[in-house]
Amino acid sequence: MNVGNLSRERAVTLSPDDIPTSWYNIQADLPEPIQPPLDPGTMKPVNPAMLERIFAKELVRQEVSTERFVKIPDEVLDAYLRQLRPTPLYRAKRLEAFLKTPAEIYYKCEYLSPAGSHKPNTALAQAYYNKKEGVQRLVTETGAGQWGTALAMSSSLFGLKCRIYMVRVSFQQKPGRRTMAEVWGSEVFPSPSDQTKFGRSLLEKDANHSGSLGIAISEALETTLEDDNSRYCLGSVLNHVLMHQTIIGLEAKKQFEMIDKYPDLICGCVGGGSNFSGLSFPFMVDRLKGKTETEFVACESKAVPHTTRGVYTYDFGDTAKITPLLMMLTLGHEYVCPPIHAGGLRYHGMAPLISYLIQKGYMRSIAYHQREVFEAARILAQTEGMITAPESAHNVKYAIDEALKCKRTGEKKVIAFNNTGHGLLDLSAYQSFLDGKLLDYEPGKIEVPTFDH
Amino acid sequence: MNVGNLSRERAVTLSPDDIPTSWYNIQADLPEPIQPPLDPGTMKPVNPAMLERIFAKELVRQEVSTERFVKIPDEVLDAYLRQLRPTPLYRAKRLEAFLKTPAEIYYKCEYLSPAGSHKPNTALAQAYYNKKEGVQRLVTETGAGQWGTALAMSSSLFGLKCRIYMVRVSFQQKPGRRTMAEVWGSEVFPSPSDQTKFGRSLLEKDANHSGSLGIAISEALETTLEDDNSRYCLGSVLNHVLMHQTIIGLEAKKQFEMIDKYPDLICGCVGGGSNFSGLSFPFMVDRLKGKTETEFVACESKAVPHTTRGVYTYDFGDTAKITPLLMMLTLGHEYVCPPIHAGGLRYHGMAPLISYLIQKGYMRSIAYHQREVFEAARILAQTEGMITAPESAHNVKYAIDEALKCKRTGEKKVIAFNNTGHGLLDLSAYQSFLDGKLLDYEPGKIEVPTFDH
Repeated sequence: MNVGNLSRERAVTLSPDDIPTSWYNIQADLPEPIQPPLDPGTMKPVNPAMLERIFAKELVRQEVSTERFVKIPDEVLDAYLRQLRPTPLYRAKRLEAFLKTPAEIYYKCEYLSPAGSHKPNTALAQAYYNKKEGVQRLVTETGAGQWGTALAMSSSLFGLKCRIYMVRVSFQQKPGRRTMAEVWGSEVFPSPSDQTKFGRSLLEKDANHSGSLGIAISEALETTLEDDNSRYCLGSVLNHVLMHQTIIGLEAKKQFEMIDKYPDLICGCVGGGSNFSGLSFPFMVDRLKGKTETEFVACESKAVPHTTRGVYTYDFGDTAKITPLLMMLTLGHEYVCPPIHAGGLRYHGMAPLISYLIQKGYMRSIAYHQREVFEAARILAQTEGMITAPESAHNVKYAIDEALKCKRTGEKKVIAFNNTGHGLLDLSAYQSFLDGKLLDYEPGKIEVPTFDH
Repeated sequence: MNVGNLSRERAVTLSPDDIPTSWYNIQADLPEPIQPPLDPGTMKPVNPAMLERIFAKELVRQEVSTERFVKIPDEVLDAYLRQLRPTPLYRAKRLEAFLKTPAEIYYKCEYLSPAGSHKPNTALAQAYYNKKEGVQRLVTETGAGQWGTALAMSSSLFGLKCRIYMVRVSFQQKPGRRTMAEVWGSEVFPSPSDQTKFGRSLLEKDANHSGSLGIAISEALETTLEDDNSRYCLGSVLNHVLMHQTIIGLEAKKQFEMIDKYPDLICGCVGGGSNFSGLSFPFMVDRLKGKTETEFVACESKAVPHTTRGVYTYDFGDTAKITPLLMMLTLGHEYVCPPIHAGGLRYHGMAPLISYLIQKGYMRSIAYHQREVFEAARILAQTEGMITAPESAHNVKYAIDEALKCKRTGEKKVIAFNNTGHGLLDLSAYQSFLDGKLLDYEPGKIEVPTFDH
């Protein structure tokens, strides 16, 4: 074997020297600006200055910026390099051979960071800006725990304290991610907790309250507002979070250039929308400018069909109606997400930027039941070795289906997806699948409120 | 920041094009040959041909070979590249800064493969040779499960069936690794099992028998000998296994050359000895030839002090006295390993090659209690992000202690270790540590048999 010629057919690697040094801000290239967040009291656009009591100032500035490229601070770039970025672009040739498809399947390896997912791409940036502005403690909520662990690690690396409200049912069922956050020195409380007024009020009514992401957000915000030295961090949905994730797609674009290819199809799972945006936005700009016809497909759960059955309207980001109203695809802020294992996909809304692009026809979406996505994940594991996270298994399913379509049509499509996390903290879900005990869930009741605006 | 200049201070990466294409066989460079395995019946050297009913022929050939470099078959090289080899050599600069040490600390990232440890370096090679020789099924045993999962994945990638006997207590306490092996399509049985005569005989006496590695080996051998199309695989101890792991050190040597450094100290944890050999042998040759004075330090558990308190003599490799006698440092084949969390270090003997090198004074060893090694692992996590396996935490402890010694002496030692696995399937052990519930264990009763030879 001539290693030199063939190694790129396995994994396209970028030298650390070639890591992108700016993030890409898609707000610079949209046909029109997205609609601003509204203050639910006045139904007027929220004043960014008001948000600075909650988020670091620089993050509020990035949220509304239309600057095309935002320089990655040296300290964040240093942290990226220490997480073994740039990540490889992997060619799944064994999977292609198994499927007997003429399609080429590539994925970005975002599971290699110590936190096991793409979340550190923004967590490191958020920790850095907060540290720089003199903040002493970060506060956040987490459901299944990928975001919480990423922020815990990032806080540790930048010398910040960190408090995490973890939905009680996850705190009990997924002890591993709580442990990781504590190894990194964070405080983790099951939510509802006795640490906030709101938490105590709920525990008084029900001492075993199982919690929800909405309640955990409320507790995190209450704690943030009580302490001048604390700021709140969010792991998806917002524009600045999506922008930090574009390091994935900027690397991928260089990697595809190295092998003289360009993806015909980019698919990714969507919870709040950040990993999908991260891979796709640097390619989406070419489509926005009419240069390419790449297809962009968001993959979600049939149990939480926010982009396939959601309504495009203003809605709260949380259940407790504390956040501003965001213009987005939503199932309604009171939507009760069924207990699918892909915890990262259990959110009622969708990032305003993704919602906008779907509305405008620049991308589309598809929904799956969890048994079929675990079957796809098993095929990936048995052909390529990698055991993927239940979230990412959704786009593996789509990539496989598309590759099989290519087998019928003979099309040599270049398919790319984001392998956004490993499944090593989700093995009990895999065991349920193997044991034939995994259930599919129909969506809950969809009730989307309307606001006069 | 000038990325080009500084990126190598974070992670020294080797292009896939520069992956080493041969393994290094230290048997070519020893001052004298190591003593051969003996048939316990005759006390004569075992005839390699007899071993071919157990192992693939090529592996038996490699076991006794004194060829200096053995070409890595293209198919294995391909598999290595698909596991994202070459792995980065990481500079732990944040740890250095935390310790305020003038020492430089580097580690190889062997936890990045889908199986989460260095074990696939040999599992892939063993699966390949067996497949090539027409074997249809691999059989092995596993304790904590790192080896079992690596062989399960490798069997899947090379289209072989795989059966794993997993020590029952681990099967019950560490369900994650069993699940991984099953996702990759292997059969996993708790040992003792109802699948073998030996297993059934034990279950008749005690239906809840908790098992041991020795019993699991016996079951795996019984199954192998019953079926002409099956062969047995071992994950450590033997010469050919250690040789396959030298891909680690061969890469590291190239990486140190790239930054114009050479390690003054190489440390690694030792269970059977394979990961330590893998990193150190390509450097050890320079010391054997008198070119360098690099120190080599094996780190083990005080509960299983095979190299610090073991006797250098012929002993069985397993509890049930089925294997040939190996000349090695041993605590006696009936040694009962206390239940430390570093499952990979729970073995009574030590690889004959490592045992020989320790006896000859080319390397030394040190033992730790588990609480102090978890404390070291926490320091690594909070400075560098990475949560390491309990096994590897032993060499992290040594590296930290040495770096602190350098702080006192002002020595700018270059310290290298193998970060051989991640700790994401050992988080319950970390939680015990955080909760102050982790126990230290004194060694068990050390009784080393003597054989006339």
